[in-house]
Amino acid sequence: MGNCIQGCKDYFSRQKNTNIRLTLPVVCFVWQIAMIILFGVFIRYDEESDTHWVETKAHDNITSDIENDFYFRYPSFQDVHVMIFVGFGFLMTFLKRYSFGAVGFNFLVASFGLQWALLMQGWFHSLDPQTGKIFIGVESLINADFCVAGCLIAYGAVLGKVSPVQLLVMTLFGVTLFAVEEYIILNLLHARDAGGSMVIHTFGGYYGLTISWVLYRPNLNQSKRMQGSVYHSDIFAMIGTLFLWMFWPSFNSAITDHGDGQHRAAINTYLCLASTVLTTVAISSLSQKTGKLDMVHIQNSTLAGGVALGTAAEFMISPYGALIVGFFCGIISTMGYIFISPFLEKTLKIQDTCGIHNLHAMPGVIGGIVGAITAAAASESVYGKQGLINTFDFTGDFKDRTVLTQGGYQAAGMCVSIVFGVVGGAIVGSILRLPIWGDPADENCFDDEVYWELPDEEEEHQESIPPILEYNNHMIHKQQDLSESNFSVEHCES
Amino acid sequence: MGNCIQGCKDYFSRQKNTNIRLTLPVVCFVWQIAMIILFGVFIRYDEESDTHWVETKAHDNITSDIENDFYFRYPSFQDVHVMIFVGFGFLMTFLKRYSFGAVGFNFLVASFGLQWALLMQGWFHSLDPQTGKIFIGVESLINADFCVAGCLIAYGAVLGKVSPVQLLVMTLFGVTLFAVEEYIILNLLHARDAGGSMVIHTFGGYYGLTISWVLYRPNLNQSKRMQGSVYHSDIFAMIGTLFLWMFWPSFNSAITDHGDGQHRAAINTYLCLASTVLTTVAISSLSQKTGKLDMVHIQNSTLAGGVALGTAAEFMISPYGALIVGFFCGIISTMGYIFISPFLEKTLKIQDTCGIHNLHAMPGVIGGIVGAITAAAASESVYGKQGLINTFDFTGDFKDRTVLTQGGYQAAGMCVSIVFGVVGGAIVGSILRLPIWGDPADENCFDDEVYWELPDEEEEHQESIPPILEYNNHMIHKQQDLSESNFSVEHCES
Amino acid sequence: MGNCIQGCKDYFSRQKNTNIRLTLPVVCFVWQIAMIILFGVFIRYDEESDTHWVETKAHDNITSDIENDFYFRYPSFQDVHVMIFVGFGFLMTFLKRYSFGAVGFNFLVASFGLQWALLMQGWFHSLDPQTGKIFIGVESLINADFCVAGCLIAYGAVLGKVSPVQLLVMTLFGVTLFAVEEYIILNLLHARDAGGSMVIHTFGGYYGLTISWVLYRPNLNQSKRMQGSVYHSDIFAMIGTLFLWMFWPSFNSAITDHGDGQHRAAINTYLCLASTVLTTVAISSLSQKTGKLDMVHIQNSTLAGGVALGTAAEFMISPYGALIVGFFCGIISTMGYIFISPFLEKTLKIQDTCGIHNLHAMPGVIGGIVGAITAAAASESVYGKQGLINTFDFTGDFKDRTVLTQGGYQAAGMCVSIVFGVVGGAIVGSILRLPIWGDPADENCFDDEVYWELPDEEEEHQESIPPILEYNNHMIHKQQDLSESNFSVEHCES
Repeated sequence: MGNCIQGCKDYFSRQKNTNIRLTLPVVCFVWQIAMIILFGVFIRYDEESDTHWVETKAHDNITSDIENDFYFRYPSFQDVHVMIFVGFGFLMTFLKRYSFGAVGFNFLVASFGLQWALLMQGWFHSLDPQTGKIFIGVESLINADFCVAGCLIAYGAVLGKVSPVQLLVMTLFGVTLFAVEEYIILNLLHARDAGGSMVIHTFGGYYGLTISWVLYRPNLNQSKRMQGSVYHSDIFAMIGTLFLWMFWPSFNSAITDHGDGQHRAAINTYLCLASTVLTTVAISSLSQKTGKLDMVHIQNSTLAGGVALGTAAEFMISPYGALIVGFFCGIISTMGYIFISPFLEKTLKIQDTCGIHNLHAMPGVIGGIVGAITAAAASESVYGKQGLINTFDFTGDFKDRTVLTQGGYQAAGMCVSIVFGVVGGAIVGSILRLPIWGDPADENCFDDEVYWELPDEEEEHQESIPPILEYNNHMIHKQQDLSESNFSVEHCES
Repeated sequence: MGNCIQGCKDYFSRQKNTNIRLTLPVVCFVWQIAMIILFGVFIRYDEESDTHWVETKAHDNITSDIENDFYFRYPSFQDVHVMIFVGFGFLMTFLKRYSFGAVGFNFLVASFGLQWALLMQGWFHSLDPQTGKIFIGVESLINADFCVAGCLIAYGAVLGKVSPVQLLVMTLFGVTLFAVEEYIILNLLHARDAGGSMVIHTFGGYYGLTISWVLYRPNLNQSKRMQGSVYHSDIFAMIGTLFLWMFWPSFNSAITDHGDGQHRAAINTYLCLASTVLTTVAISSLSQKTGKLDMVHIQNSTLAGGVALGTAAEFMISPYGALIVGFFCGIISTMGYIFISPFLEKTLKIQDTCGIHNLHAMPGVIGGIVGAITAAAASESVYGKQGLINTFDFTGDFKDRTVLTQGGYQAAGMCVSIVFGVVGGAIVGSILRLPIWGDPADENCFDDEVYWELPDEEEEHQESIPPILEYNNHMIHKQQDLSESNFSVEHCES
Repeated sequence: MGNCIQGCKDYFSRQKNTNIRLTLPVVCFVWQIAMIILFGVFIRYDEESDTHWVETKAHDNITSDIENDFYFRYPSFQDVHVMIFVGFGFLMTFLKRYSFGAVGFNFLVASFGLQWALLMQGWFHSLDPQTGKIFIGVESLINADFCVAGCLIAYGAVLGKVSPVQLLVMTLFGVTLFAVEEYIILNLLHARDAGGSMVIHTFGGYYGLTISWVLYRPNLNQSKRMQGSVYHSDIFAMIGTLFLWMFWPSFNSAITDHGDGQHRAAINTYLCLASTVLTTVAISSLSQKTGKLDMVHIQNSTLAGGVALGTAAEFMISPYGALIVGFFCGIISTMGYIFISPFLEKTLKIQDTCGIHNLHAMPGVIGGIVGAITAAAASESVYGKQGLINTFDFTGDFKDRTVLTQGGYQAAGMCVSIVFGVVGGAIVGSILRLPIWGDPADENCFDDEVYWELPDEEEEHQESIPPILEYNNHMIHKQQDLSESNFSVEHCES
């Protein structure tokens, strides 16, 4: 009886907490209307996606439509798009009963964030001073997807512990912070970071980890039964892993220079990731008594190489250099899952559901360092005179910059991304602690039940369960208050 | 004993009804042989896929192989191909026990239809009067995939209620009707519809709905236990949703003009779909007492924006215009699932398994209207003189057409697609009512058992079920005729 | 009691056999370090992916970056990449409890093999005699993926019966053999085989079948309970099937000639595969009493057309020719599953888990024959003078070769690939019989348990199983030694 009352209490407290029927629609509607107004004021097609291109083209002596930037970048854009929606979404389906939330909220957050990203990045990077407009093309779409990636990384740290409204708030501030740090790193410091080791992964990683730290749940073990995977959910997660892994060369080459820049970035990332797989498998196997592999490592650490080559992929790091980066990233990331994640949780009180520290934060920092070293070590003999200028964009205000100075600015850029992640995460985390966002109770974490209408599984079970069990089921419904032993006796006497 | 006899009867009646061992192979073989003969007579490589291109190219002063249409369209073609086979296929796997039929018959129907589409579209659109041949290239493949999409949309309305033979018949006539209405809309009326709001979605939607209406099953609730999803099947369906959603910009831009045309169509569709996701989530959350989300809405309504921008994606609808279209489509489509689908089923006797009315028919009509309005509102100040001519192809016979007239013809095109869908569907539906197609009985709908050899699940259960249950299972097999209570006693006395 | 002792014995023997904690990490680490060293010595960026391209380009009068080979081949490369990792990986997830091994080991083997392939293919095909370096670009990546495909095909024959260490050894030798046979067929014999009917599928198929024959397990029926699929695993496998099917046009056109060559190869493969689906469905339906379809056929035989057009896809086989090839391949491959696979297993003692004989070996041989005939039948009237030279590369040493001679060399190439597969497989199979590789016992085949930490499913079961069963579970844990009947009595008396 006491249990029943407690249960009722739980039921109502839970209802009260997680009802998002008001907040979620309001946020979605208000936001979308705001987007429409702001797009109406600011966003226009750029010259390559405008019908006037027929004249622009003639004016610029472009002889063929194939030189439209669309054909340079659209295939990479679509690959990046798949990484954002299927890659990140399915990677997070590994939990046994949070796949709807993983794929569904990822979908919502990305759709929400990419619109704001187009505006924020536009204001900071490409606002035309004469017209006051932002002109967008396929490269803007890629950048918006990149920006969203930072927020989805942060989602990985708090997966299962926040409400969709909190996610939208996290994304709103995340995109804003992203645009500012990106502006500082790429424009003011003039650091190179085409694949976003710093601006995407380091920032997103520390942003998410700090938020998770602020939202620390000391009683999270109350939902321990929902943590961990089941066989099928691990295979769903592999869909995410593989699409991220396969398309990472497109991610790192999507906005690099036309021609050899995109070509080289793709080759480097391809090689680096292959190397990561081997060392991930090696460390995973070493970590178990009988050498069995752990799916968590295979799903995540195999991707660390792509993260760590985000900055240097477009440089002349050379094929064996790419392999070396992948080699160490596989080791470090897998060791992170084995040793560092438990330490973070127990000692630093950072609960990191997907282990983004091992997949994004650490490899991102490695990527920043690799980028700084590679830049500082660049030379005209390797790059060629013009090649060096093109690769590091030593033009305009920066035409006298040396590679050593560039290395320093790269390192500075990495620090900026960490600072933005940690400070921004602390502030946003505090906002998310307000008791108005409908987040789940500790015992309801990692459970789709809270925010999703789940299909009724009972019928299916009755299908596959033999009659005797159906009978048992039937009895149980009548007698749920009986203790186990009583029930058993009753069962036999009947 | 009575149950057993009844069971036996059911068994045999079911066998008799759904045996497709003769019809399915015959249709497949005859059809495929006919295709080979017709292809032999009519279909040839076009000049860009023929080895003579080396000469053609020189003749046309084309300096680079990259100007072959292949490089303009092949990446989009592959995205469209994924939408047809994985997108449509997996979107329909949501039912708990019809995933084989969803993916498998989708595969069969699409492979069957695309061959016929190449011929039909070839005869109507690109038959060379001199040689009497149809010359195909990558754009033909995209158009064939588009044509098939119309039939797969129709499949969504009758999913689980028809035999594969019926699907092939539906596709045979569907492709034929499609080619005719497409010829009328695009060539005679000279309406623009690159992404197929009218020719694909409106036609396909009403074609399927009318067929479903003709095939109305009053006793469909006999297979109620098989309707609805289970947890895993909903995640499989999300694979379909996401690939459709991500690649829709490729769908709407696949056959638009080279250069800015493809570029703009992709941008518009990308924005429109993002907007749709937010309003879909908002309405879905509003529709439940506690604001929980419904997977049906997330899986389907999020795509409505792509449908509705099929006509206008290549126009200068402007980025905020695309957002507005998406905004309303998300609302209308989700409301459709909540209010209109039950109404259609109860009042109009239209059983629409996948809700194609909300995902294709309504948004398609909206797309037609948006296209008509956008066309009528086009102006030289926005498009530029040459841009306007290029976008609406005001050349040849149509070089004096005004945008207002164009708007009228767009609206007329939409009516044509509805008429073809409804009238064609009524005729084809009547043909499908003949008792020779092997369709399932009412109580066997939505069940893969009928047309597929299903893996034996028993063993798996024995694996995971503890010994006591295996024992129970064992006993059950011996004693299935005993009533439940008897059985229970027997069990305890043994 | 005896059972318990036997169980303990089994347990320890199993532990002893399959412990790969030493071998797997050692192989991975040693190999990856070797790769880094060899890449450092040999591998460099080619001129199109090097920063010096800005000068090369100017020198070669290339006016636009879009003429970089990257833009000709990268979209196809990504499609091929998806086929290798998602296609092959998920196709093999059909077994009820070997999906981790299917996707995971596929991932490991491919990442391992592609690095070695870049070196081996580089040494044989593109070692620069002056510098002693191998220069890689996007085409090298495609070729490396192709080479790996051969080894993944071989994996299909031994799926579930080998350890990951054995797979790595198989791949090490497989890639080596592949590079040699490829050199003989493509360079010495100057046969054409852009989609690899011979060099990839025939070789890979016979290599795997011969290894499986050498590793014959007479007592494999001890793990019969793990063979076969379950409902969900069959749907996962369809993900693999569809991505292979959809992207096969990219596979066969990825390294064909720029322009019409790639265009034509894609069209031919698209048509051929559509035709295969129809005849596969027809034969599958014919093979069952009531015309039900078999998922094994749909998952595999539908792909046979792509294999069989690997050689001829770039030729002027004409659209109806492609349909004819697909027509017969669907029939032959499906018949293979019905009649030949059981024969191979019973009579020839070849246990072929995935039926690669029907999907790769046979269709590969057909592809070689089709290629030889089509080449021999080529004529200037069909190809054009320059077209014939381009298609068969009748330049340099081969400028006087006739099409008839070419047909002969094509046939010779096919024989080379079979010989390399069979002889190589026999040798490598013998190496794999050494008792040091940690392969599973007969009763543990097809079970992920052996090499993977599996998620604890018990909790999930407790979630969904009603209390009475939990109680039963509880009892069972205390009393596992009791015989079933004893237990039952005890249970009822409690």
